[in-house]
Amino acid sequence: MKTGIAVAMAAGLCCAQNPEAFHPAPTNVWGAAYPRVDDSGRAQFRVKAPDASKVQVNFWGAAKLDMLKQPDGFWTVTSAPLVPGFHYYTLLIDGAEVSDPGSHAFFGGGKDASGIEIPEAGATYYLPQDVPHGEVREIWYNSKITGSWRHALVYTPPDYDTKNSMRYPVLYLQHGAGEDETGWVRQGHANFILDNLIASGNTRPMIVVMAYGYAKRAGQPDIDLFGKPFGSPEAMKAMQDMASAFEDDLTQVLIPYVDAKLRTLSDRDHRAMAGLSMGGMQTFQVTFDHLDLFSYIGGFSGAAGVLGNQKLDTKTGFNGALADPEAFSKRVHLLWIGVGTAEPVRMHEGLLRVHEVLRQGGIKHIFYESPGTAHEWQTWRRDLKDFAPRLFQEGAQ
Amino acid sequence: MKTGIAVAMAAGLCCAQNPEAFHPAPTNVWGAAYPRVDDSGRAQFRVKAPDASKVQVNFWGAAKLDMLKQPDGFWTVTSAPLVPGFHYYTLLIDGAEVSDPGSHAFFGGGKDASGIEIPEAGATYYLPQDVPHGEVREIWYNSKITGSWRHALVYTPPDYDTKNSMRYPVLYLQHGAGEDETGWVRQGHANFILDNLIASGNTRPMIVVMAYGYAKRAGQPDIDLFGKPFGSPEAMKAMQDMASAFEDDLTQVLIPYVDAKLRTLSDRDHRAMAGLSMGGMQTFQVTFDHLDLFSYIGGFSGAAGVLGNQKLDTKTGFNGALADPEAFSKRVHLLWIGVGTAEPVRMHEGLLRVHEVLRQGGIKHIFYESPGTAHEWQTWRRDLKDFAPRLFQEGAQ
Repeated sequence: MKTGIAVAMAAGLCCAQNPEAFHPAPTNVWGAAYPRVDDSGRAQFRVKAPDASKVQVNFWGAAKLDMLKQPDGFWTVTSAPLVPGFHYYTLLIDGAEVSDPGSHAFFGGGKDASGIEIPEAGATYYLPQDVPHGEVREIWYNSKITGSWRHALVYTPPDYDTKNSMRYPVLYLQHGAGEDETGWVRQGHANFILDNLIASGNTRPMIVVMAYGYAKRAGQPDIDLFGKPFGSPEAMKAMQDMASAFEDDLTQVLIPYVDAKLRTLSDRDHRAMAGLSMGGMQTFQVTFDHLDLFSYIGGFSGAAGVLGNQKLDTKTGFNGALADPEAFSKRVHLLWIGVGTAEPVRMHEGLLRVHEVLRQGGIKHIFYESPGTAHEWQTWRRDLKDFAPRLFQEGAQ
Repeated sequence: MKTGIAVAMAAGLCCAQNPEAFHPAPTNVWGAAYPRVDDSGRAQFRVKAPDASKVQVNFWGAAKLDMLKQPDGFWTVTSAPLVPGFHYYTLLIDGAEVSDPGSHAFFGGGKDASGIEIPEAGATYYLPQDVPHGEVREIWYNSKITGSWRHALVYTPPDYDTKNSMRYPVLYLQHGAGEDETGWVRQGHANFILDNLIASGNTRPMIVVMAYGYAKRAGQPDIDLFGKPFGSPEAMKAMQDMASAFEDDLTQVLIPYVDAKLRTLSDRDHRAMAGLSMGGMQTFQVTFDHLDLFSYIGGFSGAAGVLGNQKLDTKTGFNGALADPEAFSKRVHLLWIGVGTAEPVRMHEGLLRVHEVLRQGGIKHIFYESPGTAHEWQTWRRDLKDFAPRLFQEGAQ
């Protein structure tokens, strides 16, 4: 194999000039000049594919951008201004969907995809600031449910290592479908959001556990979601099998592991769960099945009873937990639902409907709309920024 | 952007049958059936590129494998048996060098490249076992040297969180050129190697700090290594500028930060440094410049005075530290050098020559050869397995 030293030449990297006020994107690998962005949010892409006949930039769910071949064998294109925040993308090279070597990889869509960060003017809450920083820890635990080693990320607050007798509340925070346990840190910057919120004094120092959201029971065949039409009974069944195994792993293995391994406050008054999209659905399933374990609940662009023709029935839904609004709001300190105004209509209207049903039923909750953002990380960063300060406070809501 | 739920369909994943005793590689993303490996170490690759005219698998430094187009638009190829261990690779699609969507990305060659793990029969020392596990922590520190936030990974041993008054020795462990601070965990499995060594009772529980090996001084222009011939004076100058900034960042910022933040034993008798390839060169530079800080030194396939026509002079080299062998071996508890027997001749012979010069000079040291492995991670995993048990022990060597 190639020597590391020879590889150095490809890695030393550098430093194109930016005559048009374009700068390398913050999501680039060290020294890569492309992709690059300007202050209006336009992005320029460039990739070497000398023998290709067609190359496109593929922003997921948006129109593809045709790249233009240059005499030097590189293909280039400049986008229209993009919404600030983090956007997944891939390249389509003669029909192959691949990542851009200039960008770091971010796990999404079931693979290490490319991502580009478009800065939001004035928004520093998700960037590293000169404040005390917590740590993100990787843990591995051997799950009797799945019969496998599982990996999770854990954020510990800045003073965790110095206040040796302090115990902390815990937020379980889940990624979306196609993503994994690294999403909330890599794409979401949850650690920086918490650092900044804690430093401002408005948010209680807490531990955040980010689990791997896929699971199948030990000895069971692989869960095959391929080739099943979206929303079909077969696809929903496969999803539910996975959700059920995930629920048991989380409640029977991971929570006890975290409570044994870290200095947690392990009663329900000091345990929260939230998640985005699929993670929001998982949150509603897990928390309403286990109100003995959780007292704070957050659904970010995802919650049970959102999609299709389902309508939440506050009398019978969620095991009847909502039937007595007063009892519910004593038991659940926070029920929080958020959505971006630019999300797909089905998601936006579905969550508006949940909000309306809860309101009509007199169920105390918070409903938050992120202006101008879609089903993407800028929405979920804002969600966390609104959600976290409401956790583990006296008189929450 | 695409909804997370729709993305789920691409991510649920699964489960091809393996009629030829091929199994998905352990380095694959969840559920990807390809690439896959058999017991002889052969690897099968498969990628969708319906409109491409030429697709190859590019094992770095080895011959490229031509893939064959199938009627379904997928390209496939089966390799000859590969040496066990971790191998970087990319795909060449009509001249574009890109990663394989079926494999996880590993930072190497200055980008998120693909990697494939070929199991080594009987070798479990770098795999997760049912033993107590340490944690890998991500830390960020604000460096006055580079004027930027820097990221490092830190391994803490299994009992770190329960033995609240215990202090631990520290190993600084560096990646190679083109890689980054994640390499020793993602590719090298350093955390599992330490877990297993500590569990066996032969290795003292220690903290391992893995720093980002690139640096440029605050306010300095980008270091441009592009387009400079390998080994040229300009390339060496650029490398040295970077090494110098790295040395100052490590010794003036990171070490004090780690000693303040973690429960370390902070004297030189309890601090080691090792690195692979470029990291080995950095180790020799940093430790011999700072013998007040370090007393254990390891060069894994890399050490000062190895390459080109340089020959180590034990009287004048390393600031004269070797001139008095007896004094040196009292001061430096371990000098350890390793190389794979299948490495490029220049590297293998260069390190044999260092070994021989040290031997002739009467300088106490350990020289280790990894049988049959090249300039790659299986060599460095074995190095760490031999090196770590020798650290921080009475009567080391």
